[in-house]
Amino acid sequence: MKVVIPYKKSSAKSRLSSVLTPEEREEFVEIMLNHVIDSVREAGIENIDILSPSMYGLENMKKARVLLDKSDLNEALNRYLGQTEEPALIAMADLPLLSPDHIKAIISTKEDVCIVPGRGGGTNILFVKNPSCYRVKYYGSSFLTHCSIAAESGHNIEIYDSYFVGIDIDEPDDLVELLIHGKGYAKKYISQKFRLEISRGRVRLSQI
Amino acid sequence: MKVVIPYKKSSAKSRLSSVLTPEEREEFVEIMLNHVIDSVREAGIENIDILSPSMYGLENMKKARVLLDKSDLNEALNRYLGQTEEPALIAMADLPLLSPDHIKAIISTKEDVCIVPGRGGGTNILFVKNPSCYRVKYYGSSFLTHCSIAAESGHNIEIYDSYFVGIDIDEPDDLVELLIHGKGYAKKYISQKFRLEISRGRVRLSQI
Repeated sequence: MKVVIPYKKSSAKSRLSSVLTPEEREEFVEIMLNHVIDSVREAGIENIDILSPSMYGLENMKKARVLLDKSDLNEALNRYLGQTEEPALIAMADLPLLSPDHIKAIISTKEDVCIVPGRGGGTNILFVKNPSCYRVKYYGSSFLTHCSIAAESGHNIEIYDSYFVGIDIDEPDDLVELLIHGKGYAKKYISQKFRLEISRGRVRLSQI
Repeated sequence: MKVVIPYKKSSAKSRLSSVLTPEEREEFVEIMLNHVIDSVREAGIENIDILSPSMYGLENMKKARVLLDKSDLNEALNRYLGQTEEPALIAMADLPLLSPDHIKAIISTKEDVCIVPGRGGGTNILFVKNPSCYRVKYYGSSFLTHCSIAAESGHNIEIYDSYFVGIDIDEPDDLVELLIHGKGYAKKYISQKFRLEISRGRVRLSQI
């Protein structure tokens, strides 16, 4: 089986621009990418592809193969899946609470497709046993779309229920989850810049 | 074992006031309470207490016992736990994606305490095998607090990792999760008033 991680370092994470500079966002996405790669490798998977529209920031990548594709994310991924004969796991690059045990559980699904939802209708991980018979459509309510695509193409689905894999980092409130539940470099990086602001409602982010 | 559900119908869910009227919020919290009670009962637990500062909206409650306590939530719950000799599960009343299988998994923990995190540092479910030796402190970063209290009092902890139990309904974006992942009356109620607004980023709520 193989793992593919779509990734773009340049101008990354624009919805964090109110709290992190462009340089910080680039540093931070690189840390998160490395966390996802390390989690996959620790789960025993060595066949990892990074799918990126640019080599920027990937010049020295040793832990995974870099595939360049300048197309739109969906077009690039569907081309990739169409050429893949073995089971494929698509992991977003911004999952700092992902662990090797999550990966092991997801790939041991008995169903044809395993989908891990992310906040706001997203798909954080998608594991497809027969990728050449499946296509993806990220953005918008991709979780529902990916369920429909599986159903229409006769694939059985498991929905993998995980709070931690469900945390992708797009907005400032997501950094709160990293500060509370995280560990490792991604948490360390964010801890240097922010602290938790405790009130009666949900905890919010506060700049140090 | 027993289950306790803190509940207040009057002036409920003020952080939803931008999208729901006071009457709608009261109707909605009642629907969610019933969902939590039904999930617990379907998991085979009949001994259910609702802990409330008022009988308002609970006059005809048949499915659970109503305990009145006008104190602050933490004070009322700690009094309750102090008098409880058997394992106790504290479930928040606003978990519309909770299922009986979640309850069964949580109460089958091998550890002394099982904590289910909610968005923004919250504790959505807390299961304590020896409640008279434990105390709670909700609000703020209660997840971290409850982990610390367990550690300090020598209880081993399981953190139950669930996207769906992690969804408590406090803010408009939480209703998006209900529309995407929910079923039953709570989803039906919200579907009559809102639809999903799909864009390139996360799905948002839109009034019908």
